[in-house]
Amino acid sequence: MRIISTFFTPLFRPFSLFYPLDKRRLARYNIFTMKNTLTLRPIAHIKTDFKEKFGIPRQSGRAPSLTAELVFEPEFRNPDTLREIEGFSHLWLIFDFSLAHRDEWCATVRPPRLGGNTRVGVFASRSPFRPNPIGLSCVRLLRVEKREKEGCVLILSGADLLDGTPVYDIKPYLPFADCQPDATGGYASAHERDCLTVHFPQALLERIPMEKRAGLIECLADDPRPSYQDEPARIYGMAFADFEIKFTVENGILRVLDVLS
Amino acid sequence: MRIISTFFTPLFRPFSLFYPLDKRRLARYNIFTMKNTLTLRPIAHIKTDFKEKFGIPRQSGRAPSLTAELVFEPEFRNPDTLREIEGFSHLWLIFDFSLAHRDEWCATVRPPRLGGNTRVGVFASRSPFRPNPIGLSCVRLLRVEKREKEGCVLILSGADLLDGTPVYDIKPYLPFADCQPDATGGYASAHERDCLTVHFPQALLERIPMEKRAGLIECLADDPRPSYQDEPARIYGMAFADFEIKFTVENGILRVLDVLS
Repeated sequence: MRIISTFFTPLFRPFSLFYPLDKRRLARYNIFTMKNTLTLRPIAHIKTDFKEKFGIPRQSGRAPSLTAELVFEPEFRNPDTLREIEGFSHLWLIFDFSLAHRDEWCATVRPPRLGGNTRVGVFASRSPFRPNPIGLSCVRLLRVEKREKEGCVLILSGADLLDGTPVYDIKPYLPFADCQPDATGGYASAHERDCLTVHFPQALLERIPMEKRAGLIECLADDPRPSYQDEPARIYGMAFADFEIKFTVENGILRVLDVLS
Repeated sequence: MRIISTFFTPLFRPFSLFYPLDKRRLARYNIFTMKNTLTLRPIAHIKTDFKEKFGIPRQSGRAPSLTAELVFEPEFRNPDTLREIEGFSHLWLIFDFSLAHRDEWCATVRPPRLGGNTRVGVFASRSPFRPNPIGLSCVRLLRVEKREKEGCVLILSGADLLDGTPVYDIKPYLPFADCQPDATGGYASAHERDCLTVHFPQALLERIPMEKRAGLIECLADDPRPSYQDEPARIYGMAFADFEIKFTVENGILRVLDVLS
């Protein structure tokens, strides 16, 4: 970024006469206002069954049966980048919270798990709405598939990412550095086991491809409703793969009413 | 970045006549060449005892007695950003590998733990030399200190960061999502327990402030030598806090010869 600011800063003022740049939006990118910025470029994009935000598991691993594919950008398709990766069972993905880009940031957020009314500090949360909208997820590496068009593709499970999310980095999970069995999870631990009982009529479930059923049920059990809404009469619609799942929730039971395609 | 490219792309050609921009260096920042880039700005900087790269533990937690301070940038000193953070024992830091910025990237790296001669894929390693030079470390949160000038400062242990490293994000460690007791660590696990026996004469050790001694010994035991050099006659010098530690290594024993200040 330093290069850009060195060259363009003197040009900025005269050209703003012709180009009405919104300085507040530019400030978000810190091109002209701060040093030490770092620009990330996507190395890959992920393919998941979540076309919308609603219904994405709240953390990686909440729906361990879900599979996803990580497809590298053409520049990064050299199979050497993945040498020895299959020795690791888990990987970290550092990715773009692409639906959470905002011009402003807020010091506190309201985690859905706390009912949506309690505020915690943004750095005490994994909320996507943060000063730098980057996400961190631990996923399981199932295998590496070599394909003719896309090159080596990583087949993953447990990913909590929107379909098409840009990924900036992949790192191996190192048990001796990353696994902290004595860690305490603050307010987040109190609700980690909250889940719904899912009633999914067999006739409806059979409309979903076999290999996607377990993952879908895990997502529904994780309670996709925002902020613990409690409106038994409300019919929710959740996009999943090529389907729309219609359901209601009452007394801790989620009932699937329909599966549309 | 989309805003920038929209406005400046048509200007780029005429101005390159006057400003001899190095297109290859610009390409690294992807301003003009790729969509979907994301620019990060530092939210904080870390203060550690490592003024140089040599001697920094190879992973977070290798030297658990080391303490570090995370000082927020003025814009991020609102104490609300940290509300409830003290309920978490561990935090993730996402930071800039500021000494590893390069114009080019390489598909493979040579981890020091493998002797420096074996190549593994860059995405199968935690090497700082990667397409997007961002690091990920798990640290222990000891406490939050409120200071008059710097505002709330996080006191951390186990950090493997160079002094002054820009930090882009802090996230709480969530045991139910991040702790994977069954994870396998590939080639990295084979060497995780490698360490040296440290002989540190008491008279020399007493030159180091009491609270820094255990951390320094842990760093030395972690074998700071690059790529398993085995030159018993060589005297190494490692910067640590305000000191330079002189030592030799032979047959798995590190002998401290002098402590300069």
